[in-house]
Amino acid sequence: MIEKQKLKAISGFPEWLPELRMVELKWLDTIRALFESYGYAPIETRAVEPVEVLLKQGDTDKEIYAIRRLAAEPGEVAEHALHYDMTVPMARYVAANMNELVFPFKRYQMQKAWRGERPQDGRFREFYQCDVDVVDVRDIPLHFDAEMPAIMFEALDRIGVGPTATKINNRKILQGYYEGLGIADAANTMRIVDKLDKIGPSGVGAMLAGELGLDPSAVAKILALTEIKGSDSSVLGAVEKLGVKSQTLEQGLHELGFVLDALKRFPTGAFVADLSIARGLAYYTGSVYETKLVEYPDFPTVCGGGRYENLVGSLINRRMPGIGISIGLTRIFWKMQKEGRIKPTRKSPSDVLVLFPRGGAYADVAATAQALRSRGLKVEMYHEDRKIDAQFKYATDKGIPYVWFLPAEAGAAHKVKDLARGEQHDADPLSWLPARLG
Amino acid sequence: MIEKQKLKAISGFPEWLPELRMVELKWLDTIRALFESYGYAPIETRAVEPVEVLLKQGDTDKEIYAIRRLAAEPGEVAEHALHYDMTVPMARYVAANMNELVFPFKRYQMQKAWRGERPQDGRFREFYQCDVDVVDVRDIPLHFDAEMPAIMFEALDRIGVGPTATKINNRKILQGYYEGLGIADAANTMRIVDKLDKIGPSGVGAMLAGELGLDPSAVAKILALTEIKGSDSSVLGAVEKLGVKSQTLEQGLHELGFVLDALKRFPTGAFVADLSIARGLAYYTGSVYETKLVEYPDFPTVCGGGRYENLVGSLINRRMPGIGISIGLTRIFWKMQKEGRIKPTRKSPSDVLVLFPRGGAYADVAATAQALRSRGLKVEMYHEDRKIDAQFKYATDKGIPYVWFLPAEAGAAHKVKDLARGEQHDADPLSWLPARLG
Repeated sequence: MIEKQKLKAISGFPEWLPELRMVELKWLDTIRALFESYGYAPIETRAVEPVEVLLKQGDTDKEIYAIRRLAAEPGEVAEHALHYDMTVPMARYVAANMNELVFPFKRYQMQKAWRGERPQDGRFREFYQCDVDVVDVRDIPLHFDAEMPAIMFEALDRIGVGPTATKINNRKILQGYYEGLGIADAANTMRIVDKLDKIGPSGVGAMLAGELGLDPSAVAKILALTEIKGSDSSVLGAVEKLGVKSQTLEQGLHELGFVLDALKRFPTGAFVADLSIARGLAYYTGSVYETKLVEYPDFPTVCGGGRYENLVGSLINRRMPGIGISIGLTRIFWKMQKEGRIKPTRKSPSDVLVLFPRGGAYADVAATAQALRSRGLKVEMYHEDRKIDAQFKYATDKGIPYVWFLPAEAGAAHKVKDLARGEQHDADPLSWLPARLG
Repeated sequence: MIEKQKLKAISGFPEWLPELRMVELKWLDTIRALFESYGYAPIETRAVEPVEVLLKQGDTDKEIYAIRRLAAEPGEVAEHALHYDMTVPMARYVAANMNELVFPFKRYQMQKAWRGERPQDGRFREFYQCDVDVVDVRDIPLHFDAEMPAIMFEALDRIGVGPTATKINNRKILQGYYEGLGIADAANTMRIVDKLDKIGPSGVGAMLAGELGLDPSAVAKILALTEIKGSDSSVLGAVEKLGVKSQTLEQGLHELGFVLDALKRFPTGAFVADLSIARGLAYYTGSVYETKLVEYPDFPTVCGGGRYENLVGSLINRRMPGIGISIGLTRIFWKMQKEGRIKPTRKSPSDVLVLFPRGGAYADVAATAQALRSRGLKVEMYHEDRKIDAQFKYATDKGIPYVWFLPAEAGAAHKVKDLARGEQHDADPLSWLPARLG
């Protein structure tokens, strides 16, 4: 016997009971159907990448799990590690399969990822991500910048976790605005501004002055930009009023304006331009998005994404722009469960439990179950000749909505009972359809 | 730029192009629907288990991948490793969630597993397994011994990889027969007999005599048993004719007879009692199964399973019998592909490509795509204003069956074209349904 300790949960590696897994699968199915309805094709990448590929791209501050055979020689260095997102593997997959793919390549990917971070509220070491991305060898038209947040909105709406609020910005606005101010190091300015949530405007101002040596008027201009928020094109005017000018800024404002305009059909508050967000990832170059659950403002971002011009191309030395979003499914699922917003009633997918009549024959029960199954129903047969009370209890405990009685005698009718309503009536296994399915 | 080497495939970690992943997903959906039609509930276990749990159970000769944070201290020992099957994680999951589960617990699980073995024909380091198991705190009735191979048959039949041949034996027959011969060490006898495929009867005979010191008549009796094969109860008579007797043997024959009888409804050759098979795994105690693809007799086993009385219980010191099967999905998928039996035509899930009219407006194209989508169709819009030839080529290259034309002028009708048939006709985005979907 293995010590009890070994049966315990592993921190950060969540597992769900069947009734919750059924809900999670429904979410995954819903999101998959949505992604496919937009014409995104599925891929699944291997769980591991070369350590070098993971370290050179993206979130390099993330803790990475290397894998190594237990039987490996002591000195053997781990070459491969578990992926920590879907974006870097997708970029590698596209680069590796250039000649087999049709461009623009539109793919979705719904897989587990792993990060060795310290687990905390909503942060896991093993988690599902659901991503869509478009990658092309040509320019990617701007309307994809609107399609991405629209898909994000629809996905979260369909799984019933709304209302959501997606903040939108454009890296070109930040880049161009800093350039217009004559700041040479736009990348580090962005990195510091990204800390706004954590250290506040005064902290950011101090770092900009201290680390980058910016003068007070430049710092004030930078902070003024971060205060601009709004859901329509008035934000563009507000930026222009700040009096900073550059071509890149102009392009960024045009792009943001296009996106806001294309998203007008959505409910108020669903999308807000917020010029303070930058997204941590180095590879974004245009639109960036991050989504929060409105009812849980302190809960971390649940979706993120953006446009990247050089991520895929950097692997093969060729320009290949891309744009995508990622839904942090496990995080959302965990939160909704914790908030009591997931209330599963079914512990089994079965629509019907065929009861085993006292003294009955297995073959008869099996034949009836098979007849119902052949018509697309999900059917368990009770597995042994046992008191009917125990059989009913099994159906009730698993939340199976209907129980089925074989004919009590030759020539008599089958019967079916709706357990929730207590209604029972004659039924034919070759034609009966349930009135409701839980 | 990362060296090209890093973009290459990693041996044993297969990946598929989108058109193949779509087929793989269809297989997974088909098997999942089948499992659910029998009332099995989904679970998904974390990818890792404590190293100790993996080493104490099951296939301990398998190479295991331990995981370890790249940032870990040099001396830090890897505590966790990737699971190499679904059975051991399921047993641990059941033991850990005893009080939350309703028994008999019937679950399915379709996940990747990892083994650090040398990759070769049909053997991968990362692969899907699709498992169903029943575990109970009480005895599990014998009809599950028939349900398991029946599900296995249906699964392989539905994904179109048949004909299949499943060999069935019962460990109690082997155990009881060896006991009846007065052999003390039945486990090692079984282990040696399991090598029949590799070293032949003479090799097995030599080992039985050499290692276990069995006399020639016992060796002859053991080899005689391995020669018995057949698809009906005549095999039971053939065993009885060998004149060996024990209670366990009798019980085993009764069980095998029941299973063969219950499987009579299947095509000839689908199930064959074969008293030579033992299955390598130590934990089986009753029925055992292994399935081959009839057309590829040299290809390894594609499904396996059996009954185990003590696997789950051994984790919590309580008797908990179980029975299950496992489908080696990746292996089968790879083989079918290699044999040219998977011929995907679609590289996109899209049913329709809405063309972008020259000089047209994005909003009009998007609105039509959205109207079609709202009715459950999978719809891509062509992403830019470009020559119609290029747009048609995109649809053809991705295998999208229909292209949609927006009205050429206000008041005119939409049109849709079936690319395979070359037929084109007027259509309303609010009511049109495709005649065929690829």
